[in-house]
Amino acid sequence: MKLRFGMVGGGNNAQIGKYHRAGALMDDLCVLAAGCFTRSMELNLATAAQWNVPDTSRVYANYREMAEQESRRPDGIDFVSIVTPNNTHYDIAKTFLEHGIHVMCDKPLALEVKEGEALAALATEKGLLFGMTYTHVGFAMPHQARELVRSGEIGRIVYIVGEYPHEWLAVTLGTGRVMGIPTWRFDPAIAGKAGATADIGGHLEHLLTFITGLKLQSVLARFDHIPAKHPLETNSNILLRYEGDVPGMMWTSQIAYGNECTISVRIFGEKGAIEWRHVTPDVLKVTRLDQPPQVYTPNRSYLHPKAKAVCRLPFGNHEGTLEAFGTLYRGFCNHLLARKNGGAIGLLDYPTVQDGVRSLKFIDACYESNAKGNVWVDIR
Amino acid sequence: MKLRFGMVGGGNNAQIGKYHRAGALMDDLCVLAAGCFTRSMELNLATAAQWNVPDTSRVYANYREMAEQESRRPDGIDFVSIVTPNNTHYDIAKTFLEHGIHVMCDKPLALEVKEGEALAALATEKGLLFGMTYTHVGFAMPHQARELVRSGEIGRIVYIVGEYPHEWLAVTLGTGRVMGIPTWRFDPAIAGKAGATADIGGHLEHLLTFITGLKLQSVLARFDHIPAKHPLETNSNILLRYEGDVPGMMWTSQIAYGNECTISVRIFGEKGAIEWRHVTPDVLKVTRLDQPPQVYTPNRSYLHPKAKAVCRLPFGNHEGTLEAFGTLYRGFCNHLLARKNGGAIGLLDYPTVQDGVRSLKFIDACYESNAKGNVWVDIR
Amino acid sequence: MKLRFGMVGGGNNAQIGKYHRAGALMDDLCVLAAGCFTRSMELNLATAAQWNVPDTSRVYANYREMAEQESRRPDGIDFVSIVTPNNTHYDIAKTFLEHGIHVMCDKPLALEVKEGEALAALATEKGLLFGMTYTHVGFAMPHQARELVRSGEIGRIVYIVGEYPHEWLAVTLGTGRVMGIPTWRFDPAIAGKAGATADIGGHLEHLLTFITGLKLQSVLARFDHIPAKHPLETNSNILLRYEGDVPGMMWTSQIAYGNECTISVRIFGEKGAIEWRHVTPDVLKVTRLDQPPQVYTPNRSYLHPKAKAVCRLPFGNHEGTLEAFGTLYRGFCNHLLARKNGGAIGLLDYPTVQDGVRSLKFIDACYESNAKGNVWVDIR
Amino acid sequence: MKLRFGMVGGGNNAQIGKYHRAGALMDDLCVLAAGCFTRSMELNLATAAQWNVPDTSRVYANYREMAEQESRRPDGIDFVSIVTPNNTHYDIAKTFLEHGIHVMCDKPLALEVKEGEALAALATEKGLLFGMTYTHVGFAMPHQARELVRSGEIGRIVYIVGEYPHEWLAVTLGTGRVMGIPTWRFDPAIAGKAGATADIGGHLEHLLTFITGLKLQSVLARFDHIPAKHPLETNSNILLRYEGDVPGMMWTSQIAYGNECTISVRIFGEKGAIEWRHVTPDVLKVTRLDQPPQVYTPNRSYLHPKAKAVCRLPFGNHEGTLEAFGTLYRGFCNHLLARKNGGAIGLLDYPTVQDGVRSLKFIDACYESNAKGNVWVDIR
Repeated sequence: MKLRFGMVGGGNNAQIGKYHRAGALMDDLCVLAAGCFTRSMELNLATAAQWNVPDTSRVYANYREMAEQESRRPDGIDFVSIVTPNNTHYDIAKTFLEHGIHVMCDKPLALEVKEGEALAALATEKGLLFGMTYTHVGFAMPHQARELVRSGEIGRIVYIVGEYPHEWLAVTLGTGRVMGIPTWRFDPAIAGKAGATADIGGHLEHLLTFITGLKLQSVLARFDHIPAKHPLETNSNILLRYEGDVPGMMWTSQIAYGNECTISVRIFGEKGAIEWRHVTPDVLKVTRLDQPPQVYTPNRSYLHPKAKAVCRLPFGNHEGTLEAFGTLYRGFCNHLLARKNGGAIGLLDYPTVQDGVRSLKFIDACYESNAKGNVWVDIR
Repeated sequence: MKLRFGMVGGGNNAQIGKYHRAGALMDDLCVLAAGCFTRSMELNLATAAQWNVPDTSRVYANYREMAEQESRRPDGIDFVSIVTPNNTHYDIAKTFLEHGIHVMCDKPLALEVKEGEALAALATEKGLLFGMTYTHVGFAMPHQARELVRSGEIGRIVYIVGEYPHEWLAVTLGTGRVMGIPTWRFDPAIAGKAGATADIGGHLEHLLTFITGLKLQSVLARFDHIPAKHPLETNSNILLRYEGDVPGMMWTSQIAYGNECTISVRIFGEKGAIEWRHVTPDVLKVTRLDQPPQVYTPNRSYLHPKAKAVCRLPFGNHEGTLEAFGTLYRGFCNHLLARKNGGAIGLLDYPTVQDGVRSLKFIDACYESNAKGNVWVDIR
Repeated sequence: MKLRFGMVGGGNNAQIGKYHRAGALMDDLCVLAAGCFTRSMELNLATAAQWNVPDTSRVYANYREMAEQESRRPDGIDFVSIVTPNNTHYDIAKTFLEHGIHVMCDKPLALEVKEGEALAALATEKGLLFGMTYTHVGFAMPHQARELVRSGEIGRIVYIVGEYPHEWLAVTLGTGRVMGIPTWRFDPAIAGKAGATADIGGHLEHLLTFITGLKLQSVLARFDHIPAKHPLETNSNILLRYEGDVPGMMWTSQIAYGNECTISVRIFGEKGAIEWRHVTPDVLKVTRLDQPPQVYTPNRSYLHPKAKAVCRLPFGNHEGTLEAFGTLYRGFCNHLLARKNGGAIGLLDYPTVQDGVRSLKFIDACYESNAKGNVWVDIR
Repeated sequence: MKLRFGMVGGGNNAQIGKYHRAGALMDDLCVLAAGCFTRSMELNLATAAQWNVPDTSRVYANYREMAEQESRRPDGIDFVSIVTPNNTHYDIAKTFLEHGIHVMCDKPLALEVKEGEALAALATEKGLLFGMTYTHVGFAMPHQARELVRSGEIGRIVYIVGEYPHEWLAVTLGTGRVMGIPTWRFDPAIAGKAGATADIGGHLEHLLTFITGLKLQSVLARFDHIPAKHPLETNSNILLRYEGDVPGMMWTSQIAYGNECTISVRIFGEKGAIEWRHVTPDVLKVTRLDQPPQVYTPNRSYLHPKAKAVCRLPFGNHEGTLEAFGTLYRGFCNHLLARKNGGAIGLLDYPTVQDGVRSLKFIDACYESNAKGNVWVDIR
């Protein structure tokens, strides 16, 4: 029996809506049964037709109505995907949780830490699942990296580097084309108080935590506005201090010509190191003390079962961004199916509301560090 | 209005069935309405449930019945996807064409040239579309390569290199694991008279022809059986002679350790060169006389509209093998929709039955060249 | 007429001595005429024989005697190469300057800023050349990078990243082998107060300044002792602020498994970006706004004359570390020959005592920033 | 005691002369004591001054006089380096051998097989060493590759691919610049009957034989004249059959835009594979059955002693083409020193006259195969 889900947002040809829908449907664990894709009922109906929502009575003009109606139906949606602009996540997620509906939410969880914490508390109180789509842990190689760390292959971690340079904003500003990037991303009232640090640094913080398993304790951040007149920082450097006094460094940039989503992580231990770059997502470089570096690739027999579980296609084939979203939805849906039907959850875990809260605290601390003149700020 | 399609084969967790279904559904141009996925009705019904075929009366025990029934329905399928073992393609495609149903067929088109020619003639006679899934032209960069050639950017072509080394068979034989590779691929009666040359060389021949636009006139081939006892050649070298006396070379291998689907093409002209490697599908290296080589990537403003039309995601994101299948289905469906509804076909063309026939002639000529002791054989 | 030079240090199979000698002789502009290679006269004579010093009366037991004797000879050395441990550079350089002999000195210039400033003042006062061997500007591509910046190809610089991860110390400590690395490098009294920041960060600071032409104004540094008991920092992060409020970042590490001298620089401007990595020294990646990145290589017609002047071999051949040293000596010798004989200096400049002083100030500021708890410190 | 050598050819700023001299002097095993660098005595004297030949009475107007004079001196040269155009190698080498002087000769050994065989016989008869400079075995990684093959790490070899694409001729012709390439290379009377196959294919044949240790038994070659009017073939494909019926393939090209000396070899065995590319000479990719590929680099503890013996610099530093020449001269000189002084030869072997003869036979067979219409020709 498949799960049923609904979507809030995603119409108007929003990229992120397509990612979520493709990801949700990737492994045939759920069907799209309801939706409120835009603020226009006409567009919602057109989107529903395009997206094969069979019952037009389950296309809604606003999300509150959707939550109410769906929560009353015996065949109501099991979960909702929230893919709206940042500043609306909190209200929408809260509404669905209050109606007893599980939530998958695009990042960031909310604009403020206290909002995020309220959502986490509400999910716990209601006993509901709350997943988040930090994309990059949907690729197989970060899972292999995590398992190599867990099994002690590289020894105690001693230093961590993450970077996420991108050129989209520089190209957007330089050419005058907006390239499908919604302009609300330039508005702090909608996007939040931080720019690159939140938007792509959030991915980086999550990926580093995912792989290392270490708790980030304090940050020293510098925000750069490039160009100077831009309302949010477009570049940032963050010195990191993880538990056990493990140092690290982060760089985020939206103005780094020659880089297209070039997120990468390098984890150094006492006995070895691991390196993953999103630009070649199928490659994990693993170095052990005084040995030739090795190149791990997806769906090989030598991978850890948890990394192998992410892979859908025989080795040599490529899985991309949509498949990565699929991996997150697969983990979430398997968890939900195990709740409903019994049975095992499967090997895949997925980012949750706790990751979302931690991310907001990270962004807050970076913001405060920069505002205070680049001083160390603890993540509370 | 969406197209309806049916599928023959693809059940039993066959990889290729998943590729075709994911590809067909990728761009929401069609829905899966009917199928005969295996030889077992029980499995077919289970597959239909898994794959959201809404009407179980359109799940069939054999493909002949499916062709008959669907051709009689007012809401019958517009096209069929054929994803069965090689030796059945001819009969199945013929049956659906005879019932007036368009065809998308996995490669190879058939086992014998005359079968392929018969299918091409039948499709023409019936006025039906007949597409084929040569995967690699589903990526954006080969389209850019083709347009650079067409526009004369690299001048007259003077030399062509294609290679497709793979290690799947060596790993399969070396480890004793079969890795989801169906064993019928080792049986000439089912797979056809050639091994690597047909299975992966067919992709290479298509890709080279697609990019260069040149007609391949004669070949000199050597087939290698590695290991010696293997029933089909697992490695081959083919010297090529294209129209206008343009020389070329091809290498195919299923026993090349360290290579995972490493298909690549290098096209040299009088003024420049182009290089594409499937291992990094988002990279097209373009060199012009005495200039620094350039690296083209997907969905950039500088791409030719035909290459840009292939891209779904903003630059920096990855599209993989499933998306490549999607591109082929998109071209096919847009063509069919334009037929049905009027309107433009769109920018994307797709491989057709003519490509399938040419491929069979190529394989035949290679087989004959090797059998005769590595002599030049014309492609008739 | 060739120049004559002498060498202080370099015996005992010291790596760095070999580099300097090979570099000095690379382009046949000078001959080795005198030397004091170790503290042992016996070893000095053996080294002189090995290194083709024709006149054994010019092999000296100590460097002071060498400076005195050589300064009196009509055919005395034109310059001295100083390749001894860090803490001796000041005294030796001072001695030769005082005797009117030009100096080429390995980095660092001295241990203290005031020592470095004294040497710079003395060289000026005496009208003597004083070169330094910051290796990486001996490769051609950093010269091309500098000229692209100078000509405005990437617009105003807006962000700068330099990193120099290395694994030599981790491998040395992890395996218990010392790999030809002199243990004085672990002793602050000999090596200086900073570790990785001075040893390899010095290279990085020079390379970034060389390419960007920007003055570094302040730093915020964190030093990491990995392993904790190591007497000097082995890893460091440094936030940078260049003139015009241009931000930057630096990372140095001697414990980064999987990295072998992986110095790299990435310079971002308003119109483009430049990237160079020592691991593939023949590659310069140049990106311009919304254009495909280009890959520049040595000795091509499209290079700037100053970059082409660095290249000795036809394109496609490799020049390595010894040739890079050769480039620095070539620039120095051509300058000196132009002084002696008249004529043009040539296209190549070379690092000087001013670079050495600036480097010491940089290291001092980093040291102070770290000691004060990672605060901004101006470079005075 | 150092060896003394003389050089024939290499003046007039010939590239290859510089390579040989730099290589010969690299490891301080010999000194340049005599020479006949051009056909002009004036240029010879100038070259001798530039190159530090101390005794001008040992600068000769012609090589016959040089052979005679030097063979009579008690301090006469131990060996001669021959770096003249191809068609003169035979006469010069014969002359020096007849005067009892050992020989290092640039490739090819001669123009005709019978000339090469005569030289080999003469060297044997006289008991003289005869080395040749096949450059690429002067890098460390091919030595590691050879030892991995020898130790059975990749199992029995089953397939061999070598390619050497280059763009120098295409750029030369396309731009009208000659780039320091002597035009005698276009004249069959001087360069020999084959073009790319001899000039760069000779390197490839040597490198493949060096690594695999297999005897090449027959070839099927096609020569391509691109552009059509060019007197010698500029591109060729060669099917190979090694002893034990091991198949292989070779491609050589001088017109392959985007390739700068991109020689590469890929050796496939029953248990693994090895890949080396000159474009990144410090990287050896080693794959074992079902394991992640490994990346070997120079001067690491895990290398075979014979590979480690090639390395001069600590890992992470680069050795280039001049150092590769040095490796060949080191092997030759160590052999000669052991002959003269007793003692061990050392770990390094070097290409000899036997390699030169085999290469001529290879070129002859390729030429014949092409002339006969691309048929198999045995190498006799």
